[in-house]
Amino acid sequence: MKKLINDPEQVVDEALRGFAAAHPDLVRVFFAPNYVVRADAPVSGKVGIVSGGGSGHEPMHAGFVGPGMLDAACPGAIFTSPTPDQILAAIQAIDGGAGVLPLIKNYAGDVLNFEMAAELAQAEGIEVEAVVIADDVAVQDSLYTAGRRGVGATVLAEKICGAAAQAGRPLAEVADLGRRVNAEARSMGMALTSCTVPHVGRPTFDLPENEMEIGIGIHGEPGRRRVPLAPAAEIAAMLAEPILGDLPFRRGDRVLAFVDGLGGTPLIELYLMFDELTKICAGQGIAIARNLVGNYMTSLDMAGCSFTLLRLDDELIRLWDAPVHTPALRWGR
Amino acid sequence: MKKLINDPEQVVDEALRGFAAAHPDLVRVFFAPNYVVRADAPVSGKVGIVSGGGSGHEPMHAGFVGPGMLDAACPGAIFTSPTPDQILAAIQAIDGGAGVLPLIKNYAGDVLNFEMAAELAQAEGIEVEAVVIADDVAVQDSLYTAGRRGVGATVLAEKICGAAAQAGRPLAEVADLGRRVNAEARSMGMALTSCTVPHVGRPTFDLPENEMEIGIGIHGEPGRRRVPLAPAAEIAAMLAEPILGDLPFRRGDRVLAFVDGLGGTPLIELYLMFDELTKICAGQGIAIARNLVGNYMTSLDMAGCSFTLLRLDDELIRLWDAPVHTPALRWGR
Repeated sequence: MKKLINDPEQVVDEALRGFAAAHPDLVRVFFAPNYVVRADAPVSGKVGIVSGGGSGHEPMHAGFVGPGMLDAACPGAIFTSPTPDQILAAIQAIDGGAGVLPLIKNYAGDVLNFEMAAELAQAEGIEVEAVVIADDVAVQDSLYTAGRRGVGATVLAEKICGAAAQAGRPLAEVADLGRRVNAEARSMGMALTSCTVPHVGRPTFDLPENEMEIGIGIHGEPGRRRVPLAPAAEIAAMLAEPILGDLPFRRGDRVLAFVDGLGGTPLIELYLMFDELTKICAGQGIAIARNLVGNYMTSLDMAGCSFTLLRLDDELIRLWDAPVHTPALRWGR
Repeated sequence: MKKLINDPEQVVDEALRGFAAAHPDLVRVFFAPNYVVRADAPVSGKVGIVSGGGSGHEPMHAGFVGPGMLDAACPGAIFTSPTPDQILAAIQAIDGGAGVLPLIKNYAGDVLNFEMAAELAQAEGIEVEAVVIADDVAVQDSLYTAGRRGVGATVLAEKICGAAAQAGRPLAEVADLGRRVNAEARSMGMALTSCTVPHVGRPTFDLPENEMEIGIGIHGEPGRRRVPLAPAAEIAAMLAEPILGDLPFRRGDRVLAFVDGLGGTPLIELYLMFDELTKICAGQGIAIARNLVGNYMTSLDMAGCSFTLLRLDDELIRLWDAPVHTPALRWGR
């Protein structure tokens, strides 16, 4: 295993320490239990948004904490759900009196632990309304999931709900927006290589030199099928077609196109994949009105990428364009 | 070779097409010859800054084109210097009457071709003053270089000179700042794995599963030595000590600490390495006043990282903090 780490059991804490030292203007980081909040939390009168999940997907979620996006992130152990006490501590830290929205990726452990934390918070008088993201069209059920897995749409929901909360909208409306993003977004990913979990020390799965996995999950869960390596144009079609057909997206739709790297794929390849995706969308009469290209929801050192398409309307575009000021996503004033 | 590409000969053009489609608000991209300029170029009365070099280091340099940083980037073929005509076209496109500053990484081909382009531009009446960046302490001469190689300080010089040019400062002063960044910055890198150049199709060098290369160049040029894999803390010391001793950095110095990923290393490991670097600097009484952690100057899919330290003063801090609005680096209004 070739990694820049010390003790495999300490990777998450040590990386969080580095993260805290790198971004003191934007976040505060707490340990035991681990959670990250925006530097000015709690923001009085604003809906608080919390997300979280296993570590190993950086910059998600801690990299999205800051004005205009998340109020808190709960990083679990690598590929392991955060605990209820960890999530509860984050909810308490960001409650500004207007309620808290947990944005949960659909994995059984995440859903269970976030729900337990939500109940504990509600028992303390904090209003909580949770939204579960389940946008991966690759498989119906998977290794850690009943129903569809939550992937790339989570990043988009965090941005869009974050903008609405920042604008002072009430919990019910911010939660509605989260459900709308989930309803209007579809994703699918593929892997060229496996990732290696530090405390395991060997690749999660074997993938021969001439094969790739289509429909991979972000923890290395099996996808739809193994196929021989193919040119980027064919890979793009294998990802885009199931996405486009599922919603379905229609001629005339405006979309946000998100090409996400899985941690081990360089940016030059992601831009090349975006070029392929633009051609596919143009061919179907779908306008890419906004885009995001880069490593935002990763799977440790896995080489591969995923596509997410979100159908946009004017309101979602305004919320996407609103200022955001986080370690991993920044624009506007 | 596992890559998201089509024809290996078309990787640069196809990725540039995707880049152009992703950032139409920030850049315009030209082909044959390839160059990228900020969307509003030329900016009348402002010093124009151009950089460039072989492709395969994304987001450098095209990802740094935009207000507050570069006016133009010239992406060559993978790991291949841009041609003089390509650089000349970029200089012509960004000349706003106040002269043009080429920021050149110290590789023989880059220096030669930028100098040739500068002479051609001067013959047309464009004022040109070039600065060569040579900050890598690993080796004195290397595969493509006489003297030290230009690495991480290039990103910092582009930001700092970019801010000065944006503020309307004259060519001589902006060039002085570039030389100051070069004089006050030192870097060193290491690789866990080789990169694979698309049209070669196999790793540039062999690195056994239990070894790493200390002092690697960003094209896979040999470093100082091969050593057994070691914990992150030891790797951080192997990079930081030659840097700190070279300038030398002294107790009481304020620095910008840049932890750069080489394309195949996930962010969680880079933040962990930043944690190690903060401990080393604290132990030497050196204050990290600013930082940058992420994949900014990469080597295709190479796993590894580099450290760059830049000694700061109040002026350099102000210029670093100034607003920047590019695809890869954005902050401020």
